Amino acid sequence: MLRSGPKDPAVDPRMLERILSGDFRSVARLLTWVENEIPAATAYLRELFSYTGRCFVAGVTGPPGSGKSTLVDRLAAYYRVNGKRLGILAVDPTSPFSGGAILGDRIRMQSRSVDPGTFIRSMATRGHLGGLARSTSDALLVLDAAGFDTVLVETVGVGQDEVEIARTAHVTLVLLVPGMGDDVQAMKAGIMEIGDIFVINKADRPGVERVETQVKTLLALARRSDGWEMPVVRTIASEDAGTQECVQAIEKYRDFLRASEIQKSRSVEVERERLLDLVRSRSVQRLLVDQRMAAKLDELAQRVADRQVDPYSAAEELLRGLEVKL
Amino acid sequence: MLRSGPKDPAVDPRMLERILSGDFRSVARLLTWVENEIPAATAYLRELFSYTGRCFVAGVTGPPGSGKSTLVDRLAAYYRVNGKRLGILAVDPTSPFSGGAILGDRIRMQSRSVDPGTFIRSMATRGHLGGLARSTSDALLVLDAAGFDTVLVETVGVGQDEVEIARTAHVTLVLLVPGMGDDVQAMKAGIMEIGDIFVINKADRPGVERVETQVKTLLALARRSDGWEMPVVRTIASEDAGTQECVQAIEKYRDFLRASEIQKSRSVEVERERLLDLVRSRSVQRLLVDQRMAAKLDELAQRVADRQVDPYSAAEELLRGLEVKL
Repeated sequence: MLRSGPKDPAVDPRMLERILSGDFRSVARLLTWVENEIPAATAYLRELFSYTGRCFVAGVTGPPGSGKSTLVDRLAAYYRVNGKRLGILAVDPTSPFSGGAILGDRIRMQSRSVDPGTFIRSMATRGHLGGLARSTSDALLVLDAAGFDTVLVETVGVGQDEVEIARTAHVTLVLLVPGMGDDVQAMKAGIMEIGDIFVINKADRPGVERVETQVKTLLALARRSDGWEMPVVRTIASEDAGTQECVQAIEKYRDFLRASEIQKSRSVEVERERLLDLVRSRSVQRLLVDQRMAAKLDELAQRVADRQVDPYSAAEELLRGLEVKL
Repeated sequence: MLRSGPKDPAVDPRMLERILSGDFRSVARLLTWVENEIPAATAYLRELFSYTGRCFVAGVTGPPGSGKSTLVDRLAAYYRVNGKRLGILAVDPTSPFSGGAILGDRIRMQSRSVDPGTFIRSMATRGHLGGLARSTSDALLVLDAAGFDTVLVETVGVGQDEVEIARTAHVTLVLLVPGMGDDVQAMKAGIMEIGDIFVINKADRPGVERVETQVKTLLALARRSDGWEMPVVRTIASEDAGTQECVQAIEKYRDFLRASEIQKSRSVEVERERLLDLVRSRSVQRLLVDQRMAAKLDELAQRVADRQVDPYSAAEELLRGLEVKL
């Protein structure tokens, strides 16, 4: 499958070949490098990029306890038919206060990794801002190049990182549950921006009509400029009820995207954001690897702390230094 | 109080004077500019910076429902004695799924804004990554220059943004509640990094011994390199019980910071991070305001979306363009 030998000596052509052929162990190893920001990861991503662009990414987000993992399992069973290769990325915000939920998810994930055609991975942040969104979008490129037809991305839906992740998915399902009541009202605009399909899970619980009415009222107020009418689907994921309706809604949206120019302009927008994010992180990296500039940074940080210079002027000085240097 | 006239014509010397004298309305207006990233905000921050460095910042963080707002109210009453000026910043993650809690907080905040010597402000993100941490740290500079002796920063403690915010505080209180049980175990290292003082609120509830034992066990394992022994304080904020012990723990830590060189090296570290953050955002701003570079970005985003070039090479090209241009 490898079209030509890698340009970068840091890239092992055999490992590259194994990733392109979808070997789970090699894919998993590269994802670990991506998560830990090993420099070689970028060299691999550079080589793999031309093989990407075919994978369909569906995001599933919702509050804790809404049954995301269960629904993702049900969807996975559908997308695994006909020998299709499926990936699942479970995104961990690794917040100091959500450790419990994450541990629980991990245990559940082990139980579902029995299907040998499904690649499951938990993505965790290494603790710096934007790191999670970046490593997840890089992981999607790896799975795409590795020939996965579909990737389901499961996020807890708290925090800005996950909103960014939702933007890179082709379709995003937002899970709600009966009893959320007034919370739905409070979700307001943010959630409408993210969701393409709304799923009321645990639909056998009391209050299902109420939450459905509320969502539909909100959706009626939030007409999308692209003309897509956001459907509301009821499911009981634990009993596999409504899964087919869910898949149909996803496929209907996929057809809608294909028929319009939206997918094209969206992917340009995604790449634009990716480039800006890279410019952000690379400018700082360049500064830190340059000994003279790194020393300048330390000196200016000291002077700012001593109130001898303001941080805005100091940052300008660093940017000017970068220009001259590089 | 103004030592010299502003250098930047965008800065109105009368508004600057009013901010320095602590006028609530002028402070509030500048904070709105900061939140909305109005360019003039930077001009003001530049002028105000030399007046900063005297304010004491205490962060209070904990899971939803742990009673942060109530404890902050109690602490506020202590720090308001002797005509001291107090600020409260309540940081909203504005997650699509936490809208409810935020609304509740806002309503509560209105009820506590009765004390005319206390400035209360809710900080919300404008939806891009890192925006909340940046605007909160800028808001702290404004309150500092405006002569506030103490600022209490209340965060929900979910998401990376808030971890960053905790780093800029002089002291951070982490709230726990009985019944969190195994969750405390799951918190692991993350929380130890953030917290200087641990508060078990709602200490009249069953399970208080259990959570206290668990926290103390974890703290015993996580010795800090600076020698500070993290105290565990019990409170019942709703009844104002334990508030004094809380304040004493804060003041003890403050003395500890003063006696050591830690505060100095920490503030250099905070300014270093601020500078790197500014370099990150300014490099992208420079790219976007330059018409030729902005066009180059759009062209490259299109080519990346078409898989004609990989994003890493495209980002390098943009960085080279920035060097030549500026």
